[in-house]
Amino acid sequence: MCQLLGMNCNVPTDICFSFEGFCARGGKTDDHKDGWGIAFFEGLGCRVFLDDNPSSASPVAAFIRQYPIKSTNVIAHIRKATIGPVKLENCHPFKRELWGRYWVFAHNGDLPTLPCDHQGIYRPVGQTDSEQAFCLILNHIRQRFPDRKPPIQDLYLALQEITAAIAPHGIFNYLLSDGEHCFAHCSTKLCYIVRQAPFAAAHLIDEDITVDFQELTTPSDRVAVIATTSLTDNEDWTPIQPGELLVFQDGLPLHLTP
Amino acid sequence: MCQLLGMNCNVPTDICFSFEGFCARGGKTDDHKDGWGIAFFEGLGCRVFLDDNPSSASPVAAFIRQYPIKSTNVIAHIRKATIGPVKLENCHPFKRELWGRYWVFAHNGDLPTLPCDHQGIYRPVGQTDSEQAFCLILNHIRQRFPDRKPPIQDLYLALQEITAAIAPHGIFNYLLSDGEHCFAHCSTKLCYIVRQAPFAAAHLIDEDITVDFQELTTPSDRVAVIATTSLTDNEDWTPIQPGELLVFQDGLPLHLTP
Repeated sequence: MCQLLGMNCNVPTDICFSFEGFCARGGKTDDHKDGWGIAFFEGLGCRVFLDDNPSSASPVAAFIRQYPIKSTNVIAHIRKATIGPVKLENCHPFKRELWGRYWVFAHNGDLPTLPCDHQGIYRPVGQTDSEQAFCLILNHIRQRFPDRKPPIQDLYLALQEITAAIAPHGIFNYLLSDGEHCFAHCSTKLCYIVRQAPFAAAHLIDEDITVDFQELTTPSDRVAVIATTSLTDNEDWTPIQPGELLVFQDGLPLHLTP
Repeated sequence: MCQLLGMNCNVPTDICFSFEGFCARGGKTDDHKDGWGIAFFEGLGCRVFLDDNPSSASPVAAFIRQYPIKSTNVIAHIRKATIGPVKLENCHPFKRELWGRYWVFAHNGDLPTLPCDHQGIYRPVGQTDSEQAFCLILNHIRQRFPDRKPPIQDLYLALQEITAAIAPHGIFNYLLSDGEHCFAHCSTKLCYIVRQAPFAAAHLIDEDITVDFQELTTPSDRVAVIATTSLTDNEDWTPIQPGELLVFQDGLPLHLTP
């Protein structure tokens, strides 16, 4: 299985600490060695760094670990190839443009019975079920809202519909963001933590590294981190329930009506 | 004005030598300091590295200069902002997906009278005339060929049409690639060189660096390099004529009927 990492904040924040522990899972502390990727939203812009090398041995990952890009929305992924060979075009996150905004998507799980749709506006470039699912999501919400991003409650309902149509084809944990909202769907395994004042120290599970967030933050900062499994061993991570779709904005999950 | 650099080859080749000279123009030997970007096609996959720092002072550019990504198609750009502020979303090259392939575009020039089209399938994310032109191109060729990439002669004619419609709005030197073909349109300034056996040494204009390509190549290698102005001072670069649209494949310009 692959691993997901997401971050959604109210002020641009670097993800170096979480990415350090996450990267170790890509071939060092865990067996996800078939590529990795990370997307940073910076304003409307979005940078995606990809590599089909294991993240623990990737020169691009080594560069990212020491380059503190500040972002309000990040999605990262390390891959264990199941459907689709180890190639750059199969590395997550995938990126497309919709309504004049970039959308970024990463998936953990397999969707072996997902039918191919090569007629939609968005089509996969690689061979993964994940990119196929991303295109189905975008085709669905674009069809529903052709002109512009609708109010978040409406978008949430449309996303729930297409997610419920895709999920029965297998395991469908995913992160999806347009730089404003981060959608997190749990099919089997996904959890999150919200860090806000009073900040404390956190210690990674995968590397012996501790960071005291109090030294790095201001009292109004708020950061949600979402991951396949908890990244720290001294904080309480909240499991997202199977079947649940959360939406994060400004570092908090929104309370939307399903 | 911005600067363009493109490479189209018959075997994956690193662009380190050309990029070294090109990067120096981003704030060191020339005044193009408002961001830069480079896109590498690797198979169907495509990595784009962007930075709104000057390329001569960019940590990402420093990383790319020493990381020899091998690619058959590369497009790079350094920016002098004219239309659209210095922001990540305004850095070229821009990337979209069409027919299940990635398309990458970079532009040198201004198109001050280009009308905005916010109704097409492809819409700009940033504020540049360049991204607007890219979206117009993709909307046009998608409308003409909705299902799949047509034979290159047909695509060439459709591209000529939309290019001829956009060009009167200003200056429109551009590079466009889907990883197989590289289209190079000259409005005022663009030139190219084809390097093939027998290979020789080349010396950069912008940095005192010489590379002997004979030591790095095999006799069947062929590499076309396209740039705003020649990058070396001991080779003969061919100027592309104003109004001319060339298509490169496997390191050679194709002979297509306009």
